[in-house]
Amino acid sequence: MTAQPAVAEKASHINGFDVQAAADTIAALKADKSLAKFQFRARNNWITGGVNRSTIRDFYGAGQEDTSRTAAFEFTNGEPPVLLGNNEGGNPVEFLLHALAGCVTTTFVLHAMARGITIRELSTELKGDMDLQGLLGLDESVSPGYEQINIKLHVEADCSDEELEDLLAYAEEHSPVCNTVCRPVPVVIERAKA
Amino acid sequence: MTAQPAVAEKASHINGFDVQAAADTIAALKADKSLAKFQFRARNNWITGGVNRSTIRDFYGAGQEDTSRTAAFEFTNGEPPVLLGNNEGGNPVEFLLHALAGCVTTTFVLHAMARGITIRELSTELKGDMDLQGLLGLDESVSPGYEQINIKLHVEADCSDEELEDLLAYAEEHSPVCNTVCRPVPVVIERAKA
Repeated sequence: MTAQPAVAEKASHINGFDVQAAADTIAALKADKSLAKFQFRARNNWITGGVNRSTIRDFYGAGQEDTSRTAAFEFTNGEPPVLLGNNEGGNPVEFLLHALAGCVTTTFVLHAMARGITIRELSTELKGDMDLQGLLGLDESVSPGYEQINIKLHVEADCSDEELEDLLAYAEEHSPVCNTVCRPVPVVIERAKA
Repeated sequence: MTAQPAVAEKASHINGFDVQAAADTIAALKADKSLAKFQFRARNNWITGGVNRSTIRDFYGAGQEDTSRTAAFEFTNGEPPVLLGNNEGGNPVEFLLHALAGCVTTTFVLHAMARGITIRELSTELKGDMDLQGLLGLDESVSPGYEQINIKLHVEADCSDEELEDLLAYAEEHSPVCNTVCRPVPVVIERAKA
């Protein structure tokens, strides 16, 4: 039998992330804060009624235009019959829930990695309430958007309950989509002149 | 030759929407405001690293559980290599732009229909700026979310510039996703106890 190493080797990956690559990224951003500036983009074309389609490919970040995507992603918004559509796709307020779920999840498992916490399983259920009198302009005292969004998070990990609660609070505060929803973020719409 | 009707017949569809169905919906909501209460939902499962997948199918609205969808929609979040992924899907902050683009577009063409304005063409380009020091917790004075989102909207329609400007301002104010981004909306995360 060979002797066990005195110190356990560090895992090369935690929660699916390359630990060394993550450390290198953090070090680079600390050395040059301008590398942390990102611009994300989408282009959308209306098709008919409540149907429209976005293409997403390029973005700016880490000091340059990203060229890693060989093809654009395409996502189709639609509406169910009760909202005058034919279920051509998820609708925009549902895609917002998808974005929020994904962002809280990724922020959670990323910071878990930074703390050396291994996540075994993570799932979320989201519910968002909305009064369509707002969208339709039937009552100007009703906000058109979500009144509140509730997330139930189920997680199994190799740490204590207290560590999980602390990690969850941290993820909630640092998730970009969660922060964009919780905080008033300006949206500026400009009409292109023909 | 037969005589022309004294009054032009009303179009059955404007901008792809069934005008009568829309009028019936509005009348029903006015008669019973509880029908305007909707709850949208998503379920998400973490896969690995920055990869996770949402399923979206059921929702509550118009006084009942919707059963119109015979299958769930599935959407995959991923990340580009510079964000430690392999472009497994759009990332959450890009899906947020898709949701916003679609919601402003649908709100615009819906209220155009209500005003009898025919839209010939509508497209948008979105750009959102973000400083990743926020997500990574490197500078707690930096907000993790979007600093601002800009939308350039190109539209061709059978109305005056003034009518388009008024319609655009109305759509901006009444779009549920735009309102959710512009306004602080509470997100409540609860951990399911095992």
